[in-house]
Amino acid sequence: MTDRFAVTYHIRCDAASIEARALSIAVEQSVEMPVDAIDEPAVLDHTVGRVADIRAMKDGQFEVRIDLALSTTGLEAGQLINMLFGNSSIHDDVTLADADFPDSLLEAFPGPGPGLTGLQGVNATRALTCSALKPQGLPPQGLAKIARKLAAGDLDFIKDDHGLADQAYAPFAQRVKACAKAVREANPRTRYIPSVTGNLDTMRQQIKIARDNGLDAAMIAPMIAGLPSLEALRRENPDIALFAHPALAGASRIAPPLLLGKLFRLFGADATIFPNHGGRFGYSPQTCRDLAHAARRDWSSLAPCLPVPAGGMSPERVDEMLEFYGTRVMLLIGGGLLAAKDAMIQETLAFTRKVHAYGRT
Amino acid sequence: MTDRFAVTYHIRCDAASIEARALSIAVEQSVEMPVDAIDEPAVLDHTVGRVADIRAMKDGQFEVRIDLALSTTGLEAGQLINMLFGNSSIHDDVTLADADFPDSLLEAFPGPGPGLTGLQGVNATRALTCSALKPQGLPPQGLAKIARKLAAGDLDFIKDDHGLADQAYAPFAQRVKACAKAVREANPRTRYIPSVTGNLDTMRQQIKIARDNGLDAAMIAPMIAGLPSLEALRRENPDIALFAHPALAGASRIAPPLLLGKLFRLFGADATIFPNHGGRFGYSPQTCRDLAHAARRDWSSLAPCLPVPAGGMSPERVDEMLEFYGTRVMLLIGGGLLAAKDAMIQETLAFTRKVHAYGRT
Repeated sequence: MTDRFAVTYHIRCDAASIEARALSIAVEQSVEMPVDAIDEPAVLDHTVGRVADIRAMKDGQFEVRIDLALSTTGLEAGQLINMLFGNSSIHDDVTLADADFPDSLLEAFPGPGPGLTGLQGVNATRALTCSALKPQGLPPQGLAKIARKLAAGDLDFIKDDHGLADQAYAPFAQRVKACAKAVREANPRTRYIPSVTGNLDTMRQQIKIARDNGLDAAMIAPMIAGLPSLEALRRENPDIALFAHPALAGASRIAPPLLLGKLFRLFGADATIFPNHGGRFGYSPQTCRDLAHAARRDWSSLAPCLPVPAGGMSPERVDEMLEFYGTRVMLLIGGGLLAAKDAMIQETLAFTRKVHAYGRT
Repeated sequence: MTDRFAVTYHIRCDAASIEARALSIAVEQSVEMPVDAIDEPAVLDHTVGRVADIRAMKDGQFEVRIDLALSTTGLEAGQLINMLFGNSSIHDDVTLADADFPDSLLEAFPGPGPGLTGLQGVNATRALTCSALKPQGLPPQGLAKIARKLAAGDLDFIKDDHGLADQAYAPFAQRVKACAKAVREANPRTRYIPSVTGNLDTMRQQIKIARDNGLDAAMIAPMIAGLPSLEALRRENPDIALFAHPALAGASRIAPPLLLGKLFRLFGADATIFPNHGGRFGYSPQTCRDLAHAARRDWSSLAPCLPVPAGGMSPERVDEMLEFYGTRVMLLIGGGLLAAKDAMIQETLAFTRKVHAYGRT
């Protein structure tokens, strides 16, 4: 019987102190009090974190595995991240590198709904395409006009920019109605993904509005909304494709493959948007590869989650990206298409045709 | 008319590139697309972020002030943090240092309910005292036994450890009932603060349970629950004292005085718990001073928020801490009291008497 899960931290520390430091993290992330002062044998045996392994890394840090008690997580998204990194997030010598969970934990969380295969089909022969609706500041009709052009460029998906919320100049209900209509009219094959924001109630109302407009997808920023909100929306909407956006997720000293790949998938994301290497953000190729792997690999009975590399991409990079990720992926090009202005439809068509043609020759 | 708010970032950059870098952050945190491709004059004038100031800092970084449009925030907690740091959280050369908001924004958020004066009284002559109920892993009666001893030590408040959630070995309802009873019987003056966790609905139910047990305070970890959840619970419970816990807040490259002081207060925290300098965490004295100042200074019409320094404190440090923070503060000592084991009541009395005696001689 496994009553523990394994958490890997990278710790900046000198060799003489690492054992004590590892032990202090094991205590911080479990009982958070002097172990000497605990009388209860059950707590000592089953609750206090255990240092399972310490090994030196090449960069002078130490990789430390700590086994935490499953029972402490309450099998809930917020409390799970709390156990993984609640207080130690404040220790700037500590990075949360990875975590391995037994099936008993994995089965308690929802995982993706439609997931990668729901989005892409079981026998996917090509990657999916997506662009982002911007800029914030436009009224609903202004955004709808751009959505119409992008849809005419034959995209599979058009998602809201993560800056589109429920602002006075473009309230959610009007914006989504106008954009859904524009996309539907321009290209019945293109699916529109509105960004839902605010608290759990607000997001529920927004998903209802999306449904009322015939939509079956929504985007959420889990680190802003709170991981428990992602889990709740997933359970309540098994049929809606939930796209996770990385806003506010980058500041954390949590390895992106764990947070954006593994944990977002576990709590219910069908697709995970992340900054591709070589764009406006600093992820390395290895980070991107590990993240995509964590999102879509076989993992207990959890459906795979679709990786969506983005952030300063251009149609020129299509072949290289598909070479790198394979075709079980969605490519997202936002500003790179909008920058074409009057030639936006042609530039979008160039993008989507390039993706469609890949591997055909 | 002010239609902008000022955000200060610290950027690691060479002098030759800082202007372009500052401009790119202003675009990233607003329209997030090439500005050349924007036709709409209203968006160019009123939505695109503006670099207002760049100055070199002593440590080789640059302090950059960017003015963002108020209208983009939708006057909602999640969207406000999104505008402040959503995507730029992923740029590891950027730290979110501070933000200044006009009254028109401040008035749209709830701010504290009872706040500092509600907790401490208008003419506070002494600081407040608090301890933390631990360890996780104990059943309700085990925690209640410790709560009883702490209350006998004449504390003003006893808060749940942030690791106490809704676990099978101590479900929230049973735990809170047992601990509230124990505290009430041991010392009718001591107030118990249960930790609420999970999604917005779960936290609402837990606050209802707290009320049913005669309690008028609750603790929440806003970076785990999501900032919009803090705002929602505040609006729905103007009479409940909400204590904000910093779990998961430390990993972000957001200056603690801004996040734990200013923003938690703006969104509704009555008290903000943070790691004191010289304890188990790495905050400097200056960070702690700035954080306490941000929490309790005069700020538009927002009630002041009570600073609660904690994290590896001991009764020996009482005078020094009160010297440092003054008496508009709550001192929180957790493990330091529990470590006394059989002498826990005496150690707690030593703590509370020291706080009561401060400044009397």
